[in-house]
Amino acid sequence: MRATIITIGDEILIGQILDTNSRYISRALNSHGIVVGERTSIGDNRSQIVDTLDRALAESDVVIITGGLGPTKDDITKHTLCEYFGSTLRFDEREAEHIRSLLAARNIAFNDLNRGQAMVPECCTVLHNAHGTAPGMWFEREGRVVVSLPGVPFEMQHLIDEEVIPRLKKRFDLREIVHRTMITFGIAESILAERIAAWEDALPDYIHLAYLPAPNVVRLRLSAYEVEGKEVRREIDEKFEQLRSIIPDNIAGFEGASVEELVHNILIERGETLAVAESCTGGAIASKFTAQAGASTYFLCGVVSYSNESKSNVLGVKMSDITQFGAVSEQVAKAMAQGAKVISGANFAISTTGIAGPTGGSAEKPVGTVWIGVATPDKCYAVLKNCGTDRSQIISRATAYAIALLYDELK
Amino acid sequence: MRATIITIGDEILIGQILDTNSRYISRALNSHGIVVGERTSIGDNRSQIVDTLDRALAESDVVIITGGLGPTKDDITKHTLCEYFGSTLRFDEREAEHIRSLLAARNIAFNDLNRGQAMVPECCTVLHNAHGTAPGMWFEREGRVVVSLPGVPFEMQHLIDEEVIPRLKKRFDLREIVHRTMITFGIAESILAERIAAWEDALPDYIHLAYLPAPNVVRLRLSAYEVEGKEVRREIDEKFEQLRSIIPDNIAGFEGASVEELVHNILIERGETLAVAESCTGGAIASKFTAQAGASTYFLCGVVSYSNESKSNVLGVKMSDITQFGAVSEQVAKAMAQGAKVISGANFAISTTGIAGPTGGSAEKPVGTVWIGVATPDKCYAVLKNCGTDRSQIISRATAYAIALLYDELK
Repeated sequence: MRATIITIGDEILIGQILDTNSRYISRALNSHGIVVGERTSIGDNRSQIVDTLDRALAESDVVIITGGLGPTKDDITKHTLCEYFGSTLRFDEREAEHIRSLLAARNIAFNDLNRGQAMVPECCTVLHNAHGTAPGMWFEREGRVVVSLPGVPFEMQHLIDEEVIPRLKKRFDLREIVHRTMITFGIAESILAERIAAWEDALPDYIHLAYLPAPNVVRLRLSAYEVEGKEVRREIDEKFEQLRSIIPDNIAGFEGASVEELVHNILIERGETLAVAESCTGGAIASKFTAQAGASTYFLCGVVSYSNESKSNVLGVKMSDITQFGAVSEQVAKAMAQGAKVISGANFAISTTGIAGPTGGSAEKPVGTVWIGVATPDKCYAVLKNCGTDRSQIISRATAYAIALLYDELK
Repeated sequence: MRATIITIGDEILIGQILDTNSRYISRALNSHGIVVGERTSIGDNRSQIVDTLDRALAESDVVIITGGLGPTKDDITKHTLCEYFGSTLRFDEREAEHIRSLLAARNIAFNDLNRGQAMVPECCTVLHNAHGTAPGMWFEREGRVVVSLPGVPFEMQHLIDEEVIPRLKKRFDLREIVHRTMITFGIAESILAERIAAWEDALPDYIHLAYLPAPNVVRLRLSAYEVEGKEVRREIDEKFEQLRSIIPDNIAGFEGASVEELVHNILIERGETLAVAESCTGGAIASKFTAQAGASTYFLCGVVSYSNESKSNVLGVKMSDITQFGAVSEQVAKAMAQGAKVISGANFAISTTGIAGPTGGSAEKPVGTVWIGVATPDKCYAVLKNCGTDRSQIISRATAYAIALLYDELK
């Protein structure tokens, strides 16, 4: 079962927005056994939509389209699809009622443009968009399926999870796609490839190996498409066990849930509580946890103590420590973590204090220097990390390191 | 001048990584007058690369390819391109020396796989990759250009900026692309479209309008492709001035500037200071400000007071108010903003307290109910907003509303 994803919008082609929808849809389809053969982004242009759809239908069983469903004139996807499938638009009273109620909640009058949003092609199945005003649409032609979804990420996500995937599972007899990724570290890609060459050559045809290099880490992914999942999963596990005997000292583990998800689950399971005190990460750690449903059961308090005064007044860091050792220091990182624990009453706390740049660095403490503090029920310590050279890179690496340290403590 | 971008890698199609390269390249090409007609992501698959390249060359003057240049067997882009252009590989001593020195710095021996990286097609111009081991390649055929770059983002970025764009500017006579985006707020997309319909209809053919809606904000982008930039820029400015007379109270300014960037600039310019107290937004507001270089000049402190105790202990909200009115209430939102101001010594503070869901809602205060507090040097108030139904939507809308309210105060 093969799919093509088409994302429509001039804002993608000019680089005004990042296309995150394609990744979400790719993951969802893959995890249900549908191979994504190609992803294409095109403009809000009638002939380009028609040509791309022709090609996609020639190559795929399923085509998922996002974007171009807004109420304004620049959005032409619905009219183009309606014409493509030789249909006409009809007024859908149920969708109109839903749009009216969403608008009423925001004190907005229902006008002609909104009325236009409640018009749907006669020939499609309407996919109800509970979270927005543009309904999704499901078309079929010669055994192939074309789905059109709004481009707003969370609306698209709900429709994929709640409407599209369940319908695809019912409509097609899907086999499985298996991906499993082992994380290696401390060995360069070219050396690793040399070391495991015989193992790689012995892989069966239907199991594909990919190398995914990153700083100090190479991920090895084994993939098998449209197979009997259970058997192939066992086979892949055996292959990875062989690998463990070839490079025993370079294996960090398997990829799966994000580390913040793992921590989230452990904290809830054990009834532990968490507080964070952030300087250079500026709220990014708190955001990662609080973005997850259920975070309020363990996340008690975060403090973004950007100024020295707030480190002292809110977290109780001694001003003399800040003066003597500097705000970016082991002592201050520890005191911040300890302070967060005390003011919140949490069992665990983590802290960051560092130089996110681009200014503020020195020879002794260059941009990228970050101290990460960890306070547990029975100890408190801090670790020094160099987190790179670019502000956003430094914030995201320091966030990742801090959450990873907490995970190590909880494991 | 039209371009196609092709990103190659199974990891993109299965959703293991987010394709950020396409956006970077789109922006770079656009800002130098090259229209990106299509972006396509395909797998590490010979026939797919060939077919996609055939199609891209039929439609475009320039094709930029990233990915598939690593030293391992899964990477086949170089061999495929070499064959596509009817060439053979030669050993490039200069690239080999560069690879050797990069590896030596990491104490890695130069092996056969690295030797393979120094092999390049006879027919291409080598684009030296100062930051990695895979050189870029520049091919020409019948007046069209095909560029192949490594997929590692920062290596690709340096090659685009330092090699590809300068060569494209020399090679082609490029005209200009003009994009200018005005940010409107406080008016729904459908109402806005109705209000400015006459203005929209009067736009000349070569100026395209796009609506980009976000919570409480609609961006209006005017674009013109391959034009005399100076004249069209003036024309677009005049069009936007007309718009200002139609919706004088709903214009926030121009982009580059997100609203948080506008607030950031105003606070720095005026020497004002800011604190935030977040419940349901969980650090998202603090993150938005602290992600910007220079935030430490005005951002004093953020508190993510998730628990009632932290609202009371850290921010000084009266426990009796929480009990009487509930944590999600006008009184608590105001007290949080006021508390953030007091503990940090900031001039301005904003706060959020709401129900992010999926649980915790009631008939009276359903999921999505958010009170936003604002404290200025001379007043303190709170506003009730319904921020949707999905957790991530609620967090991002409440964040956007809170920052927009602060912007209103500062303007």
